[in-house]
Amino acid sequence: MGYIRHSRAGGNELSGRKETLKFDEIGEFGFIESIKNECITTLKDVIKGIGDDCAVFGPYSGRVLLFTTDMLVEDIHFVKAKITPYQLGWKSIAVNLSDIAAMGGRPLILLISLAIPSEMDVEIIQDLYKGMKDICEHYKVNIVGGDTVASPDKLVINVSLIGDAKENEVLYRSGARAGDSIYLTGNIGDSFAGLKILKKEISPSEPIASHFIKIHNEPKPLIETGMAIAASGFANAMIDVSDGLLSDLGHICKESDVGAILFRSKVPLSSELKLLASREKFNPLKLALSGGEDYILLLTVPQINIKDFEIVCKDKGLLPLYLIGKIVEGKGIKMVNDDGSLEEIDIKGFNHFSPSLL
Amino acid sequence: MGYIRHSRAGGNELSGRKETLKFDEIGEFGFIESIKNECITTLKDVIKGIGDDCAVFGPYSGRVLLFTTDMLVEDIHFVKAKITPYQLGWKSIAVNLSDIAAMGGRPLILLISLAIPSEMDVEIIQDLYKGMKDICEHYKVNIVGGDTVASPDKLVINVSLIGDAKENEVLYRSGARAGDSIYLTGNIGDSFAGLKILKKEISPSEPIASHFIKIHNEPKPLIETGMAIAASGFANAMIDVSDGLLSDLGHICKESDVGAILFRSKVPLSSELKLLASREKFNPLKLALSGGEDYILLLTVPQINIKDFEIVCKDKGLLPLYLIGKIVEGKGIKMVNDDGSLEEIDIKGFNHFSPSLL
Repeated sequence: MGYIRHSRAGGNELSGRKETLKFDEIGEFGFIESIKNECITTLKDVIKGIGDDCAVFGPYSGRVLLFTTDMLVEDIHFVKAKITPYQLGWKSIAVNLSDIAAMGGRPLILLISLAIPSEMDVEIIQDLYKGMKDICEHYKVNIVGGDTVASPDKLVINVSLIGDAKENEVLYRSGARAGDSIYLTGNIGDSFAGLKILKKEISPSEPIASHFIKIHNEPKPLIETGMAIAASGFANAMIDVSDGLLSDLGHICKESDVGAILFRSKVPLSSELKLLASREKFNPLKLALSGGEDYILLLTVPQINIKDFEIVCKDKGLLPLYLIGKIVEGKGIKMVNDDGSLEEIDIKGFNHFSPSLL
Repeated sequence: MGYIRHSRAGGNELSGRKETLKFDEIGEFGFIESIKNECITTLKDVIKGIGDDCAVFGPYSGRVLLFTTDMLVEDIHFVKAKITPYQLGWKSIAVNLSDIAAMGGRPLILLISLAIPSEMDVEIIQDLYKGMKDICEHYKVNIVGGDTVASPDKLVINVSLIGDAKENEVLYRSGARAGDSIYLTGNIGDSFAGLKILKKEISPSEPIASHFIKIHNEPKPLIETGMAIAASGFANAMIDVSDGLLSDLGHICKESDVGAILFRSKVPLSSELKLLASREKFNPLKLALSGGEDYILLLTVPQINIKDFEIVCKDKGLLPLYLIGKIVEGKGIKMVNDDGSLEEIDIKGFNHFSPSLL
């Protein structure tokens, strides 16, 4: 729920034709700010509206509902030649499941809206559904309906997912406190490397190319991990890494009104990514920080809970788990370099790395 | 939830290029049949999956959840020149609210997914949201989130709505029984006349043109009426007239495994539609039967309940209410003409009247 990918670079040019702003000029977050007021007409039962991975609603018998949606548009989020219909179906549901994982919830039912170009082969849509059904079966989620409409040209997929959670276990973006340790539940950057290979920006040989492409096209949302972390009661805040580590940590910092420090040497990179980077001569950390679509979890844990938390994670088989930084007072994200020096990170400066999926 | 509009006529041509079916060739309902299996992975809590106005889920504390979604695609469901952004926002939510009304439910929260062409003026999207917020305020529904993405060219709007209802009050399409009377809660055909005016297929003078266009562009979903009918306990089945009377009655017949007889003289037409039809020389009944997007309710009531039902409706101010036919054993829909003769209706024969929204 809640991200945008632009298919074109730039977008700040002033056309001078009209005095009105183009959508491109204010971007997703500017736009959301501009429409945020008056969306809630009655506070009854609404625990969280716009601004987290899922809306939270209820409680019903001590549990609350989680409600999320994601839209994938052809030639923006995917290109037919670079993902199989099966993978596209899988992924369109995975990105929603990951939003439920990010709140510590259990996914339950979903609706699928498809806008289908009339000339499209039915077989493609059936393969798409095969991928959708397989991931739903894997995570015990029911497809309970949807809407099927014609499209003039592009395939558009929208999934809406309801999950639930114990009311006192839900983990918000806004829960981080100064002093918390920041954890990642897995490596980052492999998905973005996969995207760069798909875009032919880098062209490693097989099977290394397939490794990264598979990670990009078939994400595995961490439902069990998210539920176990939420149930442990040790974490303060959680988000899934879908926009990129810096961007998603930035969301936690903004919603929690805190800053963060990252330990450069602790950001977890796969051996495959390091190898690829040395061969293709790019900085793997830079790619990992700005990448996105990793669909692992980023969470913060108060100092007092760290020992117990790490024990629980080990016991429950939630490893790997990487301590990558600290939440601090103030604003912004800084990086501790290997020599101990502190470097300010301009998140906006990372925007030119941000992936379009083309 | 669940309808398709084709922007182009035809679609049964065989290209011969490939052996695979095109989406156009099997249509929405053929497609839904082909993907329906294996969508439910666990029956726990799922009362109704694919095949009604909303999915039904729960219960939570004696109530069940209703879950519906509708997608509107530019140049398929709307043309920017023929509807204001405010009206488009209103309508995109109204069509979902009407699905909740059709089950007798109460709407609660919704998510909005938008795919926005980068070059689109922000003001248009803000006006769209204004219409969305106004209808939500009117029906006491909360907008709790969504997804905002870029689109290569067309504006796409997807709304996902959760409502709830008392478990024993929900009205399904599958509840109709032979002997039931069929009721409509309002006139039909005006919306389709509005569409024909927008498409310039007919060009009446003002203000009559505005009357029909307003009905087409600003539907008023019958939430209160649907809830009162459900609460009365007197009805067996209900649906909203979104695809057209014949098509929607056909859905009830199919799901309930019954047939229907319509009384030609009882199908309610507005005086405005009759006037327009006489001036523009078309058959208003034919237009009304096949039109669609009326967003009134079609319901069936067992003989034994009719008196009480009509009294309740009068007491609760649910009039107008029109008894237009009977549910019978068998299949298909027949029409009783004014001379008492019975005419078979070929619903498929009405397809060439079916509206594309262009």
